Amino acid sequence: MYYIGVDLGGTNIKAAIVDGDCAILGEGSLPTALPRSADEVCADIAAAVRTALDEAGLTLEQMDGLGVGCPGTVNPQTGVVEYSNNLDWRGYPLRARLAGHLGLNAAMGNDANVAALGEYCAGSARGTKSAVVVTLGTGVGSGVVIDGEILTGSNFAASELGHMVIERNGRACTCGRHGCLEAYASATGLIRSTREAAQTHPDSLLAKLAREGVTGRTAFDAAKAGDAVGQAVVDDYIDALACGVANIINIFQPEIVSLGGGIAKEGEGLFGPLRARVCPQVFGGENASSARIEACTLGYKAGLIGAAMLAAQANR
Amino acid sequence: MYYIGVDLGGTNIKAAIVDGDCAILGEGSLPTALPRSADEVCADIAAAVRTALDEAGLTLEQMDGLGVGCPGTVNPQTGVVEYSNNLDWRGYPLRARLAGHLGLNAAMGNDANVAALGEYCAGSARGTKSAVVVTLGTGVGSGVVIDGEILTGSNFAASELGHMVIERNGRACTCGRHGCLEAYASATGLIRSTREAAQTHPDSLLAKLAREGVTGRTAFDAAKAGDAVGQAVVDDYIDALACGVANIINIFQPEIVSLGGGIAKEGEGLFGPLRARVCPQVFGGENASSARIEACTLGYKAGLIGAAMLAAQANR
Repeated sequence: MYYIGVDLGGTNIKAAIVDGDCAILGEGSLPTALPRSADEVCADIAAAVRTALDEAGLTLEQMDGLGVGCPGTVNPQTGVVEYSNNLDWRGYPLRARLAGHLGLNAAMGNDANVAALGEYCAGSARGTKSAVVVTLGTGVGSGVVIDGEILTGSNFAASELGHMVIERNGRACTCGRHGCLEAYASATGLIRSTREAAQTHPDSLLAKLAREGVTGRTAFDAAKAGDAVGQAVVDDYIDALACGVANIINIFQPEIVSLGGGIAKEGEGLFGPLRARVCPQVFGGENASSARIEACTLGYKAGLIGAAMLAAQANR
Repeated sequence: MYYIGVDLGGTNIKAAIVDGDCAILGEGSLPTALPRSADEVCADIAAAVRTALDEAGLTLEQMDGLGVGCPGTVNPQTGVVEYSNNLDWRGYPLRARLAGHLGLNAAMGNDANVAALGEYCAGSARGTKSAVVVTLGTGVGSGVVIDGEILTGSNFAASELGHMVIERNGRACTCGRHGCLEAYASATGLIRSTREAAQTHPDSLLAKLAREGVTGRTAFDAAKAGDAVGQAVVDDYIDALACGVANIINIFQPEIVSLGGGIAKEGEGLFGPLRARVCPQVFGGENASSARIEACTLGYKAGLIGAAMLAAQANR
């Protein structure tokens, strides 16, 4: 069986041909090139799919399904993108339009949820029954998979774990609330903390590194070099992330919490202290086995494989 | 079809005979009378069931199933109560023991989860596809039901929404964390806030009422009588609860969040301001329909009906 997986983002349109064992046989990519019309984007989705088919040496007629991950709120029943801030779409009938191009009815889901399904089927969460995937990027994205099913909620907008407040009346979040996990645990949040600490401690190594430009790595680099100011920023970052991960475990008790995105590349410098801080916060921890906390393993391919597996699920 | 529902608590053992339409036909109750042996408690569960059968005018042979809600972590596969702090049980084979008394293999679940299933099948959440039930009592109990299935997690300890931190480094919680929803939104949390405010403002009406004894109603009563100090306590209580409920909606996007327990009896004085504060905190609120927030309707019967319906589910 062969499936087409599409990961539609605000920057790039990616497509892949994926077999029933989650192996990628061919890929295609085009810039989303916003702003332009949704119909133009749709035509380029079809073009990226054709590139992936060529690379795989397969034809559209050999495909058993099409799946699409899309930012925003996606109604998997109607195939309509109800609202996507990134794409500036409201009520766009993506399934119908893609069917016109490709002759296949797309299975559809939110991009973070679909990427979580990818990690569940073929990555860090493979072989588990339930997984929560949290991406520490510009924002904090997340997806929950329980017994192979994506948690979508009644309005297909569930699993916004980044917009769980962990600090009432805390930092302003882009969503309008104050103290969301995203405001602390995203790369953006870490960069903000790094800049604030560099300003407060202009003689620190952190401040010196920050003058060359601040990224999500700056505080970790300063801490590794023995800088106390950098270490304090890292400690507070991990403390906030541990609070969020412990909340997630107390809520879902999944087999695994997988962390992706740029910051998860810090490896054991992040995961070691994170696990140590989460463990005592898990409810009834000493009386119950608790979730593993691991790094995602698929990178951008999670979205492609997840979309393909969404199509495979729809065929069941 | 007739089912036996048992709600096993630290104070009382309750049993009911429930028909396929969730109507209660007979009830029995005995004190749990702790501390005593688990086997003695088990014998009295059977006795409470026989009382309920007598009241219903039915016999054990006419029963199509048995369900039990039990505090703590319950393994529904093995029928073992893995850990119950309330009952002081560890690894107790409740299903096997009850089968010895009643000749039926019990379907089992955590008491808060089972009560949520009761509200889902027959109470406030009847007719919805997904519901979160939160009980504002001594602690904050909760259960999540999605497409008719209780969310148990991989270790049967999920849905501890009361132990979601909403205020990092906030009030100490009985669970060992700081800033849990339970520390603010339980009756215990409200009583603490009431006492603190009464001490700080000894001339307030709140302080006067508090001298007659503080309950979860004291601050609401003072606020209703126009006391600014009482109103401030109520406002902060609702602010914390709204934060938790908004988190729950952003995570699960259920059709309904049902609130039970003593404080939920405050009615519109609680629910009106609560809804007003939750609404702007729901992610993408203006672009998605959001969960209703309502009072539970079944009271203690939720646990009995839920346990019976758990047995009915096991028969499917």
